[in-house]
Amino acid sequence: MAIPVETLFLSPDGQGTLQARIQQMVAEGILSGRFRRGEKLPSSRKLAAHLGVSRITVTLAYTELLANDYLISRGRSGYYVSDGAPVPPVYTPPERGPDGVSWDRAIIRRFTGGDTPRKPLDWQSYRYPFIYGQPDAALFDHSNWRLCALRALGQKDFTALTADLYDADDPMLVDFIARHTLPRRGIVARPDEILITMGAQNALWLAAQLLLSENRRAVIENPCYYALRDMVTQTGATVLPRMVDGDGLPPDRVPEGTDVIFTTPSHQCPTTATMPRDRRLSLLRRARRIGALVVEDDYEFEMSFLAPPSPALKSLDRDGRVIYVGSFSKPLFPGLRLGYMVGSEPFIREARALRAGMLRHPPGHIQRTAAHFLSLGHYDAQIRRMARTLHGRRQAVEAAVAEHGLTIAGRGVYGGSSLWMRAPEGTDMSRLSDDLRRASVLIEPGAPFFAGPDRPHNYFRLGYSSIPRDRIAPGIARIAAAIAANS
Amino acid sequence: MAIPVETLFLSPDGQGTLQARIQQMVAEGILSGRFRRGEKLPSSRKLAAHLGVSRITVTLAYTELLANDYLISRGRSGYYVSDGAPVPPVYTPPERGPDGVSWDRAIIRRFTGGDTPRKPLDWQSYRYPFIYGQPDAALFDHSNWRLCALRALGQKDFTALTADLYDADDPMLVDFIARHTLPRRGIVARPDEILITMGAQNALWLAAQLLLSENRRAVIENPCYYALRDMVTQTGATVLPRMVDGDGLPPDRVPEGTDVIFTTPSHQCPTTATMPRDRRLSLLRRARRIGALVVEDDYEFEMSFLAPPSPALKSLDRDGRVIYVGSFSKPLFPGLRLGYMVGSEPFIREARALRAGMLRHPPGHIQRTAAHFLSLGHYDAQIRRMARTLHGRRQAVEAAVAEHGLTIAGRGVYGGSSLWMRAPEGTDMSRLSDDLRRASVLIEPGAPFFAGPDRPHNYFRLGYSSIPRDRIAPGIARIAAAIAANS
Repeated sequence: MAIPVETLFLSPDGQGTLQARIQQMVAEGILSGRFRRGEKLPSSRKLAAHLGVSRITVTLAYTELLANDYLISRGRSGYYVSDGAPVPPVYTPPERGPDGVSWDRAIIRRFTGGDTPRKPLDWQSYRYPFIYGQPDAALFDHSNWRLCALRALGQKDFTALTADLYDADDPMLVDFIARHTLPRRGIVARPDEILITMGAQNALWLAAQLLLSENRRAVIENPCYYALRDMVTQTGATVLPRMVDGDGLPPDRVPEGTDVIFTTPSHQCPTTATMPRDRRLSLLRRARRIGALVVEDDYEFEMSFLAPPSPALKSLDRDGRVIYVGSFSKPLFPGLRLGYMVGSEPFIREARALRAGMLRHPPGHIQRTAAHFLSLGHYDAQIRRMARTLHGRRQAVEAAVAEHGLTIAGRGVYGGSSLWMRAPEGTDMSRLSDDLRRASVLIEPGAPFFAGPDRPHNYFRLGYSSIPRDRIAPGIARIAAAIAANS
Repeated sequence: MAIPVETLFLSPDGQGTLQARIQQMVAEGILSGRFRRGEKLPSSRKLAAHLGVSRITVTLAYTELLANDYLISRGRSGYYVSDGAPVPPVYTPPERGPDGVSWDRAIIRRFTGGDTPRKPLDWQSYRYPFIYGQPDAALFDHSNWRLCALRALGQKDFTALTADLYDADDPMLVDFIARHTLPRRGIVARPDEILITMGAQNALWLAAQLLLSENRRAVIENPCYYALRDMVTQTGATVLPRMVDGDGLPPDRVPEGTDVIFTTPSHQCPTTATMPRDRRLSLLRRARRIGALVVEDDYEFEMSFLAPPSPALKSLDRDGRVIYVGSFSKPLFPGLRLGYMVGSEPFIREARALRAGMLRHPPGHIQRTAAHFLSLGHYDAQIRRMARTLHGRRQAVEAAVAEHGLTIAGRGVYGGSSLWMRAPEGTDMSRLSDDLRRASVLIEPGAPFFAGPDRPHNYFRLGYSSIPRDRIAPGIARIAAAIAANS
């Protein structure tokens, strides 16, 4: 690759002759790893014109660099970084002095900290990855996704791919969601009641920004998805975590004065409890009586391989009280970052304006690729394939768990991709999961899901969306042994 | 396409016999446009199992629908929506009652309103589109982008495409930006000082969120990019718009007590003024003296076809005071939504955490596609091709403008893709641009770029990034005639 002439600048506070400064500039580029062995330098004519110096100055600098074996000359074809030039281990930009800025003062709102744990990005290198929400390459219909992406990259879809949509979404995707995706959940919505988001995370975040601030009160489930608790806390609202039971969030634990209720009725996260229909109706009645809104995170409804999923809470909503959040990232792949949110038009209008200010719109090409993948039926086929595989893995997990006498604290009656487990009282699953990791077993400790200082430490989540079936039994044997050794 | 059984639910508050309710459910699906002519219904066996009713009930309902010509039966292959079934004009979901929610009260922060104008999405149907910042399909290297996307969709890049990166970016793209993109602007940065964003919009938004709130003061340029003014205003900070001159933002107009200065030194938006080196140094001195940070939006530096661009303000920054914002969306296509931000590590760390809360990360596949496109040299080739074309168009614009005696208020000395124009005092270019639009001429009225109630109305922006060269002279003739007729 040729080094573009535009990347070369003389330092404004450089010392010495012009020739020396040019030499230094090139040598520093090589020593820092910015220019690599074999890369071609600009011609002396080009570099001279670019820097506004005479050509002979550049030629003399290059000649010096040749002599020092930083460069080699290949006759008429020009100057290259020599194979004998020094190579730094990785590209290390030059050191700078300390900042003259007090970042502690300058940054007025903090988003680091919080409960969201860091997970290993290299989970694929573990032998027993009982992790949650990661793609299984073997289950993803890669070739059809590729074909749909190609189609979305075709001349015909060029506008969708390239246009600045300002605050609009791909109408083809929105139409599909309205006609096919939402009806599966019993939800009827017009296009102006639907907003495409950068995954469910983005939808929950938009709702929290629009509905919460210092003088508002939000009920969240306890335990719950830690990133949700973080984002609700960051709005400054009063956060009211409410313990869930085997049927999810109990409506009578939602106090007067609550403004927004965040809930996961289909599969409570992380306990996997499904809220029965009667409780859904009673939660809606309670919300109506106290004037609260409900944000329904309907994650994973597609993974219902044991029984058909019940209709969404939103389908029972008669007065526009429920904001519904769905995701394509989870059943397809999390790196996709594509979800949607359904709510009354005045709410979606504000959410659209906030999204436009934040990022304008999700990339057109990704929206159109998903629209093709959905409308050609590949999505449904993939869901069916995943459900079949997850069903098999679920049976293997339950069998192994029973064999080793481990305690299931929650298992989705419809299916899902994880079990919620309880170890004996006093077991510290956070510490144990560190030990297990060293034995190539990945599990998710349960503590970060709980709110407050007195979190129970004996829970953990056992995900089976990414572990091959034949690794399940030996993996669970290792977990059981670690727990047994600890008590 | 087959209608999935999962999309069929009996309404929980339905009336009448089961058979009647099933009939109604199917008929409503057809009448609302949700099910279309020729689409196949689930078999009676499947639907009966799904609804938990007897098969004969479903068969009787289907038979009624056959009789009414809603459905037809194709022997053993099943039931289809009949070609004689009623077709609504478009899919119109059933009407609902009014919301029981007071959205005025529920929505605590508003993002609609503001100065950002709505632009026509159908600009391609206009004959003389002097618009700004839209892609020119003829200039985009569609085939190589497609190849890079395919490569990024290949088995090898599968992890980059699918993985949940949590808060990380594609290391390949970050490395390229550090080694090749930033050095062109004279900027040296480590990977932990770089954050990939959903376009420059997202970068500016993150900076505003982290650095501004009610008790902070922000200087913005006047005129400036309206969406920036909107997002700064929405933080609640005191907004101090400062008139720019022919050299951009005058440092002595930045008052004591300013916390953040938003500036566009390369091409002031919208006047296209370039800030000279001495003023850049003096702006940095001023910022240091009063303890302000500087957010530099370095948009369009690539479009420097008249002279090489000067190094970025950030390249002169010795104490970490400057936050630099760059974009790939503009030179490639705005629908891409890909940009980056460079700043000191403590700032980038917080921006990364905020981004993770908002949306996790920009889609992996798009980051990797851009990384391939950049590293294979296609990006540079495209920039050169665009610059050549824009140069020709710029000459045509200047010639036509001179011929008609129109007044240029600002023209980028390096190049750019627009001129900033001034009509005679008293001309209302907002009204005139409506008139021109009806004559198939699109221009951008200047008023929305100005802050405050007393905006001048006689400015306009003349973009030449999307108009073919041979349309320029006749288009400008029409603009000149409209202005002349008005004065």
